[in-house]
Amino acid sequence: MESIVHLSYAIDTFYFLICGALVMWMAAGFAMLEAGLVRSKNTTVILTKNVVLFAIACVMYLLIGYYIMYSSSAGGIVPNFGFLIGSENSAADILAGGDSAPYYSARSDFFFQVVFVATAMSIVSGAVAERMKLWAFVIFCVILTGFIYPVEGFWTWGGGWLSAMGFSDYAGSGIVHLAGASAALSGAIFLGPRKGKYGPKGQVNAIPGANLPLATLGTFILWMGWFGFNGGSELKMSDITSANNVAQVFVNTNAAAAGGLVAALIVATILFKKADLTMILNGALAGLVAITAGPSAPSALGATLIGVVGGIIVVFSIIFIDKTLKIDDPVGAISVHGVVGTWGLIAVPITNPDASLGVQVLGALSIFAWVFAVSSIVWLILKLFIGIRVGEEEEYEGLDFIECGMEAYPEFTKTSK
Amino acid sequence: MESIVHLSYAIDTFYFLICGALVMWMAAGFAMLEAGLVRSKNTTVILTKNVVLFAIACVMYLLIGYYIMYSSSAGGIVPNFGFLIGSENSAADILAGGDSAPYYSARSDFFFQVVFVATAMSIVSGAVAERMKLWAFVIFCVILTGFIYPVEGFWTWGGGWLSAMGFSDYAGSGIVHLAGASAALSGAIFLGPRKGKYGPKGQVNAIPGANLPLATLGTFILWMGWFGFNGGSELKMSDITSANNVAQVFVNTNAAAAGGLVAALIVATILFKKADLTMILNGALAGLVAITAGPSAPSALGATLIGVVGGIIVVFSIIFIDKTLKIDDPVGAISVHGVVGTWGLIAVPITNPDASLGVQVLGALSIFAWVFAVSSIVWLILKLFIGIRVGEEEEYEGLDFIECGMEAYPEFTKTSK
Amino acid sequence: MESIVHLSYAIDTFYFLICGALVMWMAAGFAMLEAGLVRSKNTTVILTKNVVLFAIACVMYLLIGYYIMYSSSAGGIVPNFGFLIGSENSAADILAGGDSAPYYSARSDFFFQVVFVATAMSIVSGAVAERMKLWAFVIFCVILTGFIYPVEGFWTWGGGWLSAMGFSDYAGSGIVHLAGASAALSGAIFLGPRKGKYGPKGQVNAIPGANLPLATLGTFILWMGWFGFNGGSELKMSDITSANNVAQVFVNTNAAAAGGLVAALIVATILFKKADLTMILNGALAGLVAITAGPSAPSALGATLIGVVGGIIVVFSIIFIDKTLKIDDPVGAISVHGVVGTWGLIAVPITNPDASLGVQVLGALSIFAWVFAVSSIVWLILKLFIGIRVGEEEEYEGLDFIECGMEAYPEFTKTSK
Repeated sequence: MESIVHLSYAIDTFYFLICGALVMWMAAGFAMLEAGLVRSKNTTVILTKNVVLFAIACVMYLLIGYYIMYSSSAGGIVPNFGFLIGSENSAADILAGGDSAPYYSARSDFFFQVVFVATAMSIVSGAVAERMKLWAFVIFCVILTGFIYPVEGFWTWGGGWLSAMGFSDYAGSGIVHLAGASAALSGAIFLGPRKGKYGPKGQVNAIPGANLPLATLGTFILWMGWFGFNGGSELKMSDITSANNVAQVFVNTNAAAAGGLVAALIVATILFKKADLTMILNGALAGLVAITAGPSAPSALGATLIGVVGGIIVVFSIIFIDKTLKIDDPVGAISVHGVVGTWGLIAVPITNPDASLGVQVLGALSIFAWVFAVSSIVWLILKLFIGIRVGEEEEYEGLDFIECGMEAYPEFTKTSK
Repeated sequence: MESIVHLSYAIDTFYFLICGALVMWMAAGFAMLEAGLVRSKNTTVILTKNVVLFAIACVMYLLIGYYIMYSSSAGGIVPNFGFLIGSENSAADILAGGDSAPYYSARSDFFFQVVFVATAMSIVSGAVAERMKLWAFVIFCVILTGFIYPVEGFWTWGGGWLSAMGFSDYAGSGIVHLAGASAALSGAIFLGPRKGKYGPKGQVNAIPGANLPLATLGTFILWMGWFGFNGGSELKMSDITSANNVAQVFVNTNAAAAGGLVAALIVATILFKKADLTMILNGALAGLVAITAGPSAPSALGATLIGVVGGIIVVFSIIFIDKTLKIDDPVGAISVHGVVGTWGLIAVPITNPDASLGVQVLGALSIFAWVFAVSSIVWLILKLFIGIRVGEEEEYEGLDFIECGMEAYPEFTKTSK
Repeated sequence: MESIVHLSYAIDTFYFLICGALVMWMAAGFAMLEAGLVRSKNTTVILTKNVVLFAIACVMYLLIGYYIMYSSSAGGIVPNFGFLIGSENSAADILAGGDSAPYYSARSDFFFQVVFVATAMSIVSGAVAERMKLWAFVIFCVILTGFIYPVEGFWTWGGGWLSAMGFSDYAGSGIVHLAGASAALSGAIFLGPRKGKYGPKGQVNAIPGANLPLATLGTFILWMGWFGFNGGSELKMSDITSANNVAQVFVNTNAAAAGGLVAALIVATILFKKADLTMILNGALAGLVAITAGPSAPSALGATLIGVVGGIIVVFSIIFIDKTLKIDDPVGAISVHGVVGTWGLIAVPITNPDASLGVQVLGALSIFAWVFAVSSIVWLILKLFIGIRVGEEEEYEGLDFIECGMEAYPEFTKTSK
């Protein structure tokens, strides 16, 4: 009946838009998290990078990214290339099409997708913080959001070869989080560690973040925004089964975050004899990343346990990458999004009988290989042509003045450089 | 008709989930409010307590709290005990059941309830700030969220004896806010005041909060989140009468907050000749707490006036508890949530003819007695076995380093301990 | 059919309430933005002004503003005056009325409108920051939110003469943003610049904001809240065409913000050789203001370009007002909301064939003339009777202690007054 089609369309469109607004809000979460975890002398630049990357992601995805990701032929590796986002559904078509018609506004789908893109790039900004040139970062952002991400996004969500193989990544533990972390890892390696991070005799020096309330706020924002990130990825709300799935996703997203947080609290207390707040926050984020690949299948208790494992992994991974590999990742982004994102992918078959461990691993490897390889080429070219790292003197003084011409907290006396 | 049932179910489920996401957001509000109102040396710990309590509340309520609160026989005092959260509705059952079927996802109900639990515990964290041991707080949190709150929650919302008597507490002025404040009062008494708060000759020293933008942000977050807290408590949205009620609740929640804020501004200006920002923020929160027991019955003007009374009460209550009773409550939580929560309960009969003043008072006393008594036993046991207060030296130096191993603002020079 | 009416009513009511909650959230955005862009010594007062103005706006609009704006006869210049907000729809009337009945709760409409009002006043608080007396501001707020704004709001949204002429201002580039900026301009002129802003030899001194993470957070909050501000202004969601329009509005709001941000980044980098974060944030806000007059007609690419023009205009406007006109606007509010708001109005005819450039200009001039003239009278009277500017000594010491009795960051050592 016509009225039913109208209402169903309205509900699914509204659901998409609200979930999208929550995902957009995650951009603020990354900005606050990273601004809280860097030093005050580099805070203006990290804020600038975070607002700029979100805007560039929106522009690039509108211009070419959405077309690449969603306009291509089924099953392939190489997507089609083109511009812009197609036309909106007409009411007449929808009403004529009945059940088989698209059940929500095409624009609401674009909105939900476009706010996703920045997430991957936000992961990069944390890992390369405090030493990368602003404009090298901006150029990389153009390429990641307009090309690297849409291509591998097409592989699964656009109907490409990974989708055809049955790769299962509900809201993007791999497609978004592992992808972002792969680019971040490449960037962190090309850049090298911050001055003073590793001493000449192999010491590992902690560089504490300047503003922990901001980091905590950022984590809460991400936690809230993740309800949209995972909850919207069901793509439909307007029947009982879909509504139940969305509700399960909300419950599980929350449960996994809680489980990850508690696990990181316990592990950090055992290891350090302190309730290390930054580890605890990363534990919550790890729980969120872990559940993202399959948030609708597990029970709430299962989701809590998937989060618990994520929270345990993240603490050891941060320590390993920092102390053993000596890769300097100021906010722990590679561990939270990359290592735990991979855990999320391989956890899917535990609760989802349609997924196979082999395909999940293949998907993780493919995403990593593609993003890491292309990112490395881009970083290398940027390094050769414009340089990716600020000068030593600038790094010592802080990037804020040289890049942005202003300090983040100009009136407050600082005890240290 | 089947399609109608699908759509109605979807709307009510989505409404519950979005309101729940807003309630979850209140956890960030409490964290920012409290982080802004304590001293910088205790900020990391208060942040840690706030994120940890939210996670523990989620885990405990999943494991046992929800079962205790909502699986018990009608009319009783002692609930049933058990584990986990039952099964989701099946689409077939819902469609077969027609009008009498549950009208939303059982998981969406759990989601809305689970995010509520942390609110009560957040109230405690403010009142015991700057002197309580982290792990004593964590253990108390386990017991409050897993046992104390679910039992008294069952009395009304789970169909227990207070519900049978006609006790009316729409979204929890008593069940959540007075309950939290009762536990907080007990904790503040067992702990005693912060060093330096009361001088040897009876002086009362103000201890200003370190970061008022954070406190203001926290208040705005709580204000926003309260639309979910009260608005979701109608439990249904999908017909004209319910939709009108939800809209009235949104209007009244906002109106009461505004009324409380303006009243506190005026009273504070008369008393102190200054527009005392922390009192003004507490006025807004008092308005919100006051309307929570009955936000759907009053007119918008009535709601404003209920908020105004709350805003007046809170200023005098904070002064009385601080200066006369000499109970040290760093953020005014006992006044905002306990004293004004009680005002909210006894204001219900003014606009709701189904409520009786006697039963409202009985409910308030019962909730207070239960939570205060059990909390006191728990605090006492904790005091005897692990201690609840940090050492004098640690309190002087600040809790952040000893408990969490990190300062909240490590680079900024502080003028005072 | 009855069930359809119920569901449609529920969807549109819920849509209004959620959009309204997002608009309320913008109050937090303005508070954080302004608190970040003033000096630390004036931060408590700007926070106080922001929370107080929101509460006063809610009270005044409930008491008289909504009546003035929406209860008047069609086509006029002078609205009717009266009190309160009328009655809610009855379910029986709605069901009897069928398609022609109002399609959402009357209270949800009030909620959406009441949270709008504070926006205009928030614009004023930024421009008059750091030198205006708190209580002069409060009295002005009463008059703007209870009288000045409702009268010109009636002209268009209440069915008054501008509406009859075909003036098109979807969500208020003119009615809200230009109006607020007109009052702000008048206030800034009456007040004069802050001490030290302009040197005796015509130097223009930059006065940097004290806390850029707050300013960035405020911008993200406004960006998110704007989805409700523009998205809710379609006023209906429950059919395919409306849902498509709302989706287009969400997409375009986001696209314009992104376009404005990128444009301001590029212009600022060319002019200053720095990625000036405050300009970049103002670029995003300019994009949002620019699209507000007509967010449903352009394509996403068109919206991006409207934002780009807004982002270019705002940089030059801020420089012009600051350096050439020497009007001291600490946060750039007059440029962002007034100059770019006017651009938004005159951009409507480009994509909306129903709008005419002449009427758009007439509307802009009328709104400006009305708000600027009445505001000037009010500022003048306030200046004569109670004074609008704090004393020189107080301005030097900062307003926080004299007005609010407390510092915003009492423990942190400041390097400068």
